[in-house]
Amino acid sequence: MDLEIIKLKLKEFAEERDWEQFHDPKNLSMALSVEVAELVEIFQWSKSGGLDEVKDPETKKAIEKEIADIFNYLLKLVDLMDIDLEKVALEKIQENAKKYPIEKSLGKSAKYHKL
Amino acid sequence: MDLEIIKLKLKEFAEERDWEQFHDPKNLSMALSVEVAELVEIFQWSKSGGLDEVKDPETKKAIEKEIADIFNYLLKLVDLMDIDLEKVALEKIQENAKKYPIEKSLGKSAKYHKL
Amino acid sequence: MDLEIIKLKLKEFAEERDWEQFHDPKNLSMALSVEVAELVEIFQWSKSGGLDEVKDPETKKAIEKEIADIFNYLLKLVDLMDIDLEKVALEKIQENAKKYPIEKSLGKSAKYHKL
Amino acid sequence: MDLEIIKLKLKEFAEERDWEQFHDPKNLSMALSVEVAELVEIFQWSKSGGLDEVKDPETKKAIEKEIADIFNYLLKLVDLMDIDLEKVALEKIQENAKKYPIEKSLGKSAKYHKL
Repeated sequence: MDLEIIKLKLKEFAEERDWEQFHDPKNLSMALSVEVAELVEIFQWSKSGGLDEVKDPETKKAIEKEIADIFNYLLKLVDLMDIDLEKVALEKIQENAKKYPIEKSLGKSAKYHKL
Repeated sequence: MDLEIIKLKLKEFAEERDWEQFHDPKNLSMALSVEVAELVEIFQWSKSGGLDEVKDPETKKAIEKEIADIFNYLLKLVDLMDIDLEKVALEKIQENAKKYPIEKSLGKSAKYHKL
Repeated sequence: MDLEIIKLKLKEFAEERDWEQFHDPKNLSMALSVEVAELVEIFQWSKSGGLDEVKDPETKKAIEKEIADIFNYLLKLVDLMDIDLEKVALEKIQENAKKYPIEKSLGKSAKYHKL
Repeated sequence: MDLEIIKLKLKEFAEERDWEQFHDPKNLSMALSVEVAELVEIFQWSKSGGLDEVKDPETKKAIEKEIADIFNYLLKLVDLMDIDLEKVALEKIQENAKKYPIEKSLGKSAKYHKL
């Protein structure tokens, strides 16, 4: 995936509308939480863990748009704060592997387990 | 960025711990919202729009970890629901460009504007 | 329930610590979202719709504390913005009753239904 | 405030529509998070900490409706899980008073302080 292209397009989009004035880390984190809630809303009453929603073509489209909004705000944040997304993602998986040793974590309902 | 590698590592991580049983779209959307809230928590009392937090090396580290958690859960969702992340992200930017015409949107505080 | 007493105690608590400077509507809405996420975190992997968590005494205690945090932040907001909580709650139920007519809403999975 | 009346009206509202089947603690916690996000959305781009939004009569109305939704879902949860809201709220203020001693907390930007 070419992250730089998407970041550039997001930057242009905001600049053309003079919206960069609103895009500080605090505001973008709020906006990100709002977009995630729109995804959660789609699944909140589901009795199939969300599987029926994913199977329905129209709802799938709506899900894809929410996923896109979430990712785009995440990229705005990453761009603004100068974070290497790939690097931090891979490091976090390694960190979690240590934090949750396989034998101790196996199949545990892990009420608060991460990832 | 090589998304497939990260998705694969996330898949292995969950499989090794027998955690895929918890990872349906509904639960993952909840987990995603929890991780975003951990990012929001870092910025909630900031008087600098989050800029002071980003400048502080220790807080920056904490921010990077939350960003990683958010991205990794997003990738779990994308993988599980078979979504082309790059494609939907670019399409959404185009859609928003139509939804928010430049002249009408320029500099407007745009209380509810997206992106 | 005596709302005024709780509001007063919350006000004293913040004043004594000189924390009112952080408590504007924007920041408090963020803090509220963080507390709700802490409740969501308790239920996110539950296979019983949260019922097992409620039955477990220790988890029940944790749930009660999150509920308290959520309510207390909500009261801070209500106090700061001078909102009559009882009045708006009852009005909203009436409004929803019109928005969701019984015959049309009956038993519907109502993907996006409110309340 | 007469909590029992509001709880009763919420119960009737859900029963009449056969919606209680959707209202387990897990789903209600998700719905609560969605309603809070709708409040956050109102404030996300505010440059006045939300004060301008509160002053605007139309936006104030919208805020009141979101506050009502949040409170009503909270009451659904409290009712379903049999929690004494007033009691837990007051206990939590006392607990926080111990957790954040006045001298240590005074005026501190308290990045992660609660309440």
